[in-house]
Amino acid sequence: MENNVKPANGKLGILIPGLGAVATTLIAGVEAVNKGLSQPIGALTQMGNIRLGKRTENRYPKIKDFVPLANLNDVVFGGWDVYADNVYDAAMKAKVLEPGLLNSVKAELEAIVPMTAAFDKSYAKNLDGTNVKEGTRYEMAQALMQDIETFQEEKNCDRIVVLWCGSTEVYFEESDIHQSIEIFEQALQDDDKRISPSMLYAYAALKLGIPYVNGAPNLTIDIPALVELAKQTETPIAGKDFKTGQTLMKTILAPGLAARALGVKGWFSTNILGNRDGLVLDDPDNFKTKEVSKLSVLEDIFQPEENPELYGDLYHKVRINYYPPHGDNKESWDNIDIFGWLGYQMQIKVNFLCRDSILAAPVALDLALFVDLAKRAGMSGIQEWLSFYLKSPQTAPGLRPEHDIFKQLMKLQNTLRHMMGEDLITHLGLDYYQDLVELL
Amino acid sequence: MENNVKPANGKLGILIPGLGAVATTLIAGVEAVNKGLSQPIGALTQMGNIRLGKRTENRYPKIKDFVPLANLNDVVFGGWDVYADNVYDAAMKAKVLEPGLLNSVKAELEAIVPMTAAFDKSYAKNLDGTNVKEGTRYEMAQALMQDIETFQEEKNCDRIVVLWCGSTEVYFEESDIHQSIEIFEQALQDDDKRISPSMLYAYAALKLGIPYVNGAPNLTIDIPALVELAKQTETPIAGKDFKTGQTLMKTILAPGLAARALGVKGWFSTNILGNRDGLVLDDPDNFKTKEVSKLSVLEDIFQPEENPELYGDLYHKVRINYYPPHGDNKESWDNIDIFGWLGYQMQIKVNFLCRDSILAAPVALDLALFVDLAKRAGMSGIQEWLSFYLKSPQTAPGLRPEHDIFKQLMKLQNTLRHMMGEDLITHLGLDYYQDLVELL
Amino acid sequence: MENNVKPANGKLGILIPGLGAVATTLIAGVEAVNKGLSQPIGALTQMGNIRLGKRTENRYPKIKDFVPLANLNDVVFGGWDVYADNVYDAAMKAKVLEPGLLNSVKAELEAIVPMTAAFDKSYAKNLDGTNVKEGTRYEMAQALMQDIETFQEEKNCDRIVVLWCGSTEVYFEESDIHQSIEIFEQALQDDDKRISPSMLYAYAALKLGIPYVNGAPNLTIDIPALVELAKQTETPIAGKDFKTGQTLMKTILAPGLAARALGVKGWFSTNILGNRDGLVLDDPDNFKTKEVSKLSVLEDIFQPEENPELYGDLYHKVRINYYPPHGDNKESWDNIDIFGWLGYQMQIKVNFLCRDSILAAPVALDLALFVDLAKRAGMSGIQEWLSFYLKSPQTAPGLRPEHDIFKQLMKLQNTLRHMMGEDLITHLGLDYYQDLVELL
Amino acid sequence: MENNVKPANGKLGILIPGLGAVATTLIAGVEAVNKGLSQPIGALTQMGNIRLGKRTENRYPKIKDFVPLANLNDVVFGGWDVYADNVYDAAMKAKVLEPGLLNSVKAELEAIVPMTAAFDKSYAKNLDGTNVKEGTRYEMAQALMQDIETFQEEKNCDRIVVLWCGSTEVYFEESDIHQSIEIFEQALQDDDKRISPSMLYAYAALKLGIPYVNGAPNLTIDIPALVELAKQTETPIAGKDFKTGQTLMKTILAPGLAARALGVKGWFSTNILGNRDGLVLDDPDNFKTKEVSKLSVLEDIFQPEENPELYGDLYHKVRINYYPPHGDNKESWDNIDIFGWLGYQMQIKVNFLCRDSILAAPVALDLALFVDLAKRAGMSGIQEWLSFYLKSPQTAPGLRPEHDIFKQLMKLQNTLRHMMGEDLITHLGLDYYQDLVELL
Repeated sequence: MENNVKPANGKLGILIPGLGAVATTLIAGVEAVNKGLSQPIGALTQMGNIRLGKRTENRYPKIKDFVPLANLNDVVFGGWDVYADNVYDAAMKAKVLEPGLLNSVKAELEAIVPMTAAFDKSYAKNLDGTNVKEGTRYEMAQALMQDIETFQEEKNCDRIVVLWCGSTEVYFEESDIHQSIEIFEQALQDDDKRISPSMLYAYAALKLGIPYVNGAPNLTIDIPALVELAKQTETPIAGKDFKTGQTLMKTILAPGLAARALGVKGWFSTNILGNRDGLVLDDPDNFKTKEVSKLSVLEDIFQPEENPELYGDLYHKVRINYYPPHGDNKESWDNIDIFGWLGYQMQIKVNFLCRDSILAAPVALDLALFVDLAKRAGMSGIQEWLSFYLKSPQTAPGLRPEHDIFKQLMKLQNTLRHMMGEDLITHLGLDYYQDLVELL
Repeated sequence: MENNVKPANGKLGILIPGLGAVATTLIAGVEAVNKGLSQPIGALTQMGNIRLGKRTENRYPKIKDFVPLANLNDVVFGGWDVYADNVYDAAMKAKVLEPGLLNSVKAELEAIVPMTAAFDKSYAKNLDGTNVKEGTRYEMAQALMQDIETFQEEKNCDRIVVLWCGSTEVYFEESDIHQSIEIFEQALQDDDKRISPSMLYAYAALKLGIPYVNGAPNLTIDIPALVELAKQTETPIAGKDFKTGQTLMKTILAPGLAARALGVKGWFSTNILGNRDGLVLDDPDNFKTKEVSKLSVLEDIFQPEENPELYGDLYHKVRINYYPPHGDNKESWDNIDIFGWLGYQMQIKVNFLCRDSILAAPVALDLALFVDLAKRAGMSGIQEWLSFYLKSPQTAPGLRPEHDIFKQLMKLQNTLRHMMGEDLITHLGLDYYQDLVELL
Repeated sequence: MENNVKPANGKLGILIPGLGAVATTLIAGVEAVNKGLSQPIGALTQMGNIRLGKRTENRYPKIKDFVPLANLNDVVFGGWDVYADNVYDAAMKAKVLEPGLLNSVKAELEAIVPMTAAFDKSYAKNLDGTNVKEGTRYEMAQALMQDIETFQEEKNCDRIVVLWCGSTEVYFEESDIHQSIEIFEQALQDDDKRISPSMLYAYAALKLGIPYVNGAPNLTIDIPALVELAKQTETPIAGKDFKTGQTLMKTILAPGLAARALGVKGWFSTNILGNRDGLVLDDPDNFKTKEVSKLSVLEDIFQPEENPELYGDLYHKVRINYYPPHGDNKESWDNIDIFGWLGYQMQIKVNFLCRDSILAAPVALDLALFVDLAKRAGMSGIQEWLSFYLKSPQTAPGLRPEHDIFKQLMKLQNTLRHMMGEDLITHLGLDYYQDLVELL
Repeated sequence: MENNVKPANGKLGILIPGLGAVATTLIAGVEAVNKGLSQPIGALTQMGNIRLGKRTENRYPKIKDFVPLANLNDVVFGGWDVYADNVYDAAMKAKVLEPGLLNSVKAELEAIVPMTAAFDKSYAKNLDGTNVKEGTRYEMAQALMQDIETFQEEKNCDRIVVLWCGSTEVYFEESDIHQSIEIFEQALQDDDKRISPSMLYAYAALKLGIPYVNGAPNLTIDIPALVELAKQTETPIAGKDFKTGQTLMKTILAPGLAARALGVKGWFSTNILGNRDGLVLDDPDNFKTKEVSKLSVLEDIFQPEENPELYGDLYHKVRINYYPPHGDNKESWDNIDIFGWLGYQMQIKVNFLCRDSILAAPVALDLALFVDLAKRAGMSGIQEWLSFYLKSPQTAPGLRPEHDIFKQLMKLQNTLRHMMGEDLITHLGLDYYQDLVELL
């Protein structure tokens, strides 16, 4: 199968709707890494190893030396935003990275100016940018396709991926117009309000056979219409909602508790953050979208229906508080009420002083590079093996998502091994001891 | 292969050196469970499920319904201790379980009176019990074998396992007398001081072909002499040091950080506890044994030699403080200094208000039941698949131990599947999507 | 002045509107203390000392040996509630105290059955009790006065105090009918909805010359009409909102930061609790009343108008979350963003695992005993010296309340010294060193 | 009395033994403040207000506008150190302040070069500087006096204070040679090893009538010989051990718990820090000195002999851990086991992410300016009113120190009021309500 993955020749364009804190941190970081000023910590595609073969073989190559990924030097960035600030100005306002670092890549960042955004204020009331496209939904979708093609040509890109780093849209549910691509395209023509801005970007990308990554909890590529389009155009999709901060921690800890059959009676999670994301989520309608995404995690991991004595009464509450003094320095506090042997109670408190965009940027990078890899490997539609990076992983209809980060990692790594013709790893390892018998 | 596992007929005797907080919590708990008064939370053998086959098959049997384990109603307890208190009195002094619960199984607990212990005060200065055997090391080993046989006969047990729940002995290293069973038996005859009390128990058990579990960080069954004896008598061994509390948390969190290629600059761990274990560890020589066991964990998980930019400078410090106000309610506090994208620093603080013996008791139970299973499955020597429960898992010479609790779990589960002839699980799962292609 | 305080002869009746968690914990505790089963920890009137004279005099009597307080053996309890449970049943439902303790005073608690409450559901939507009075506001007030007099007679009480331990009512503001006792009494006759249930209790008490304590943040005795009535009938009043848990901690920590001129940029406070109080506060209208009470604290202590560089930009946010797994075991988590020398930032995190009613009960007791003392000392109207116990201390019009718990304590202690004719303490103490000069 | 305080004319020299993290942070900060680049947050002498008169008078002047303090523009710094680095280089190595800030005052800092230190390695084994004086103790003391006089002349200083900011010396106790100035001077001549380096600095200062502040827990000016010398030369002294970080927090929280008569069963305090101070304290002999200073605090505040039911069983443990990843960013974690009404237990956890030198620098500044004020006010010997700033406040023989930071603040403020002829404040405030009576 190894021969089936096409090499990563030429340039890869990463086009980003939403040039805010996450996107500017990603772009500035890649530029700084390319200049040798810093390291892409947190990105498996850049820093991660993968074990191959038996433990005794000692084969731990870097992932980037194992699978053919686009090189960071071949990446070109562009994007859209409702605010007209170039990436340097936007990064300065986001206050994630230090001015010293930003100034060292100032020219590169200033050169990236957002294209006008497809926007509908009813989907994000707390935003009020003016760098937006005019016209119906159909016209905006056409304009986005034109934007992509112009960018690809001007920047001489071999391949493109589209990576949503924009805000969380308000909560709404699937309706009939989302059920097939045929009806969806008709609704586009009708300028139907139930098509969100993020769907326009996804539609434009998929129509052109360009992979799409959904970094927010928005309802976008999970509608049947766009899954169908992805299959038609043989395009990989990955979503949704970058898994960072508290949810990352939750999908690390919860599998550990479940592994040991420790009961959980309550899990209270609160967050304080003061960036634009926090401001948008201060609106209850937008918070609803995020809350649904955050709440689903524990249910999958604990499977209360299989383990009612342990997890049947779990009370799970998630809060996000807008707290300007912290800026992008998101902080989470979790109280977990567990019980063990004979029902005796214990508590775990986790206080994570994190940085929202610092955690999100490498996740965004990995997803972009991996969907590009998937495209070259001939994989299309939902890429469940990328669940590792996502709060609400998209799966085949009828298949429950896997939230346990360690099963997700196993899935990701075994997919890469499978792609390259290496043996899958099961951690059985009884053979080490059969050898031992003979030695003694 | 399924047919090769012998059924768990008749009674299983669990003989425990060290009838302190952990052992009495285990025994009282099993009696309470057998009376229907409580639940064995935290024990995978009793509460845990295992997935079999594909996700869409929805097969999640209880482990105890999948592999032939001894039933809790068939378990009989006995043991040795330097203090002569029966198990009821010892449990009351340990103050782990509430008097109400203990009184409901008082008769059963009072009936278990410790046999005289093989002891040498130079291995645990802070203990001063008088319920001890006289004689040379050789004589004590003979007496222990006699104790085991008498117990088995009197209680009409089909099978026995020996489960060390005693204190941590002082730190010392392997020497020449530990290198082969022949030299070891000569040293026994010579009453050589380098043979620790715990080695006497292990020797007695293994000589009789009885599985041995080491719940403390002591140097015992990890010496070549006893590994050799285990192979000779075709006996499974599992060690060492029950993984509970802070180290449990560490082997949950560290794999999560490593999974995401997040760097770690420092990890400071402190503990406060006020039980007898805390008192013994207040002696620096005994703490040394525990410290070595606790420190090794991170190095294996992070593999700094493979990831020098991420983990090359990790400063790891572990402290244990004797703090009487907390009794058995051990509490840990960890500060973890991590760094992400471009080296930006973040911090994680974990405060675990746990209960030492409540976490240890189900681990002890699972290990006892699983080594008994291993014996019936014809497995002997080091049981690496039980690493899941241990702070310092024993491995074949030259093989680095696996500390990542999720890989350990995968190993345990795939071993059970393998034992029963089920497919191993790899979490690849690409086939779900190949079906999907056809459906669309 | 000493001679002017009348002795505490005879019985003191404490009548409590709201026989919920706090009241039942108070009553059960006093009964247990009177039987010698437990200690009234947390009550200054019972456990506290007071320094008299110079440090070198070593005079530290118990407060109860210094001022003439009612003896606990002379206290008789009664009350009103919308639920008809007797105090034993209510205490069992509240799950604050252990059944063992409650059973030891079962007879005493069962004997206390709530009188029908004056209630209006629009002031507490989440309550639905049926043990309520019929009639207009005027009729209910008359009935309450009758209840008090009947109780006093039946129980042979020398004196009575009324102590509000009921729920937090919805937020509303003073209006014209609250401005004088004359208009207020007219509004009573008119059954005016702007008179809250708690005002009926306060009116009934004050009309009879009975001291009234307001343990909730309700607008009650702080309206001009009732202050006027208190002066007319020469009755002491104390309010409002028992200071426990997070606000207690806040009024301890904030003065410490202010003492050192450390700046504060943000203070985020969150709470999780699962008792009936938590349920009532889950309604935003009731939370508003509590929020106003909790938010005012920092502003007074930091005085941003005097210290704009240090406290001018302080962002203060308070959250309360209903979290059933914790029951009455309220838990608070505070994040405080401070800055020091040259503006460098630091953080303080406080996690208080408290018990709501355990903290409130001794506060309620002290207030009841102290307003009774005040009455006998001839003090009437607002008792600012009791600010020590209150989240929103009532003060003379135009006088800013003092929230610093240490100034409040000094005020309380110097008031007691003043009452008994002792020297006030200033902590100057230069004289110790003038003596020293002579000695050398 | 106001007229008796001499004005602060001319320059004030602050001479500092130990130009490490604290001293360089202080000096750089004062220079930055004088240039208008930053603010002296945390210094009461610069930022603090003081209330004068009744609350209704609204008189809250800045302390520096109320008492005649030296102006920061008139302060000149100098000092001694065992390392020869100038203050700029030392500050860069200390890594407390950002390079940008240090560079803005580089010229001023480079101009301050340490004089050779009086040193004896047996008092601080982990230090190995070479910028040290030769000769006997007597000769070193003479040399220090010469250093001071030369500095005063060259810098044209009107007045001098000496401020110890050096390391913690090893623990030792008073002996006969410390009992009177006559014996002490003979021991100096004999080069007696029991005279520590810090005593040489104190002796030199006091002999010249120069105030001395002891910022470390060393045994220095608390020996009778030096107290006697201070009285002879009419010189104020203040010590010992700057109160910052965890002990600051402890003397804020403990008075709050005591105020409410809440019991305390245990208090566990741990610290992690990675600066030179942490390195020195990694030696058990030096830690002993610090431990004694830190442990005494709670006993004074809780007075267990007066309150045995509340504090008689308090278990107090303090740990300091050298943890290089944190550098000067000291972090403390406290677990406090308290109990309330009827003995029910609760817990408080405080996690203080502080910065050691940022907290210490303004304390050092205030002490220097206040001892200079004391000298001009004609006060001499022990200045107990400066206890506010100190972990182990020095008091008159036989007088227990006051550790409650709020009583210390009251003492400090009332001393200033007394010095300037203002009324002392008692917080009685009954008069506000007597006026009220008349108004109604």
